[in-house]
Amino acid sequence: MRKISESTVRRLSLYLRYLEQSETQGHETISSAELARRGGTTSAQVRKDLSFFGSFGKRGLGYSVPALATRLREILGLKRSHRVVMVGAGRIGGALAQYPGFRQRGFHVSAIYDRDPKKIGSRWNGLVVRDIRHLESDLRKEPTDIAIVVVPADAAQEVVDRLVQAGVKAILNFAPVQLAVPRDVAVKTVNMAQELETLSFVLANR
Amino acid sequence: MRKISESTVRRLSLYLRYLEQSETQGHETISSAELARRGGTTSAQVRKDLSFFGSFGKRGLGYSVPALATRLREILGLKRSHRVVMVGAGRIGGALAQYPGFRQRGFHVSAIYDRDPKKIGSRWNGLVVRDIRHLESDLRKEPTDIAIVVVPADAAQEVVDRLVQAGVKAILNFAPVQLAVPRDVAVKTVNMAQELETLSFVLANR
Repeated sequence: MRKISESTVRRLSLYLRYLEQSETQGHETISSAELARRGGTTSAQVRKDLSFFGSFGKRGLGYSVPALATRLREILGLKRSHRVVMVGAGRIGGALAQYPGFRQRGFHVSAIYDRDPKKIGSRWNGLVVRDIRHLESDLRKEPTDIAIVVVPADAAQEVVDRLVQAGVKAILNFAPVQLAVPRDVAVKTVNMAQELETLSFVLANR
Repeated sequence: MRKISESTVRRLSLYLRYLEQSETQGHETISSAELARRGGTTSAQVRKDLSFFGSFGKRGLGYSVPALATRLREILGLKRSHRVVMVGAGRIGGALAQYPGFRQRGFHVSAIYDRDPKKIGSRWNGLVVRDIRHLESDLRKEPTDIAIVVVPADAAQEVVDRLVQAGVKAILNFAPVQLAVPRDVAVKTVNMAQELETLSFVLANR
């Protein structure tokens, strides 16, 4: 398969959301123009994005809503649910653990870890915060592909090393630091302050 | 000025973080190789990123830490602090309002709004949640450039229309929806579930 850019993947995910809404409303077909509107892009871009994954749709008839939704779920790895472990039981971690959007998309936070004795044992949305020292033994019992890291910057690399060692293959990182991982591990860093900085850049440079 | 890509802006922000650390540690110069390591990129890319903004550094001597830090703060619009209003006093909003990284970078959440009578009047990190109906009159009194929107998807566009109408020029949106704004308003959408989807895509397609 050709290399797919992250912006393409993001648009596929927006298209899927719209297809799922259309399914609920009983629509059977959808045009590339409608998908484009939802994805904030053009019809030509929609056709290009989807062409990466084979031939969809019929000229003049549009795309079959259920068929395209199924294919996009497959492409995005959403045909199955994903167990997710979270490290860091601070405010952001707590908000994320309870974020309904994760479960809706099949991401189930199955455990939360912290090293702070004051947090260990506290109950979060049905989960009990566990001591980080159980991380490796827990992951041996229940292998997990995805981890969310919400620890302070200076603790993040060590936590990530342990997760990688324990077999985690994809990490969503909220610590404001660049992480080193082996080539077969995917890391996506979300830096809230940096998001605001891209906005202040726009304000300062127009 | 040439159009600068968002990925360049993100790297500038990483370089600045590293420069600020280096300043604290008393370093006077820094090489493009060091900046590259921090930004997860190459020396050539660092030189290219910085060349957008004029000539920095001397061959063989590296960059002056304080001069480059000052220039990057200027480029990123961080020479002054920014007032930020937040709409939506849910869990994510609460975590963000208290996020120390914002204040460290000069972003001050100055007000939080909600429409839920149960939330209005509650105290969050020194701020009292205000009734959204005061939004326009508050913004007339204290004009604000940046807003953070953390409301449900179906409420987001209406909130954004009101913010734009009231003069907000940059919006960080956490609602999982594509927003329509005038051309002179910048929107950055952070979709937590979508971040996980880009990871599940990588897991499914390797």
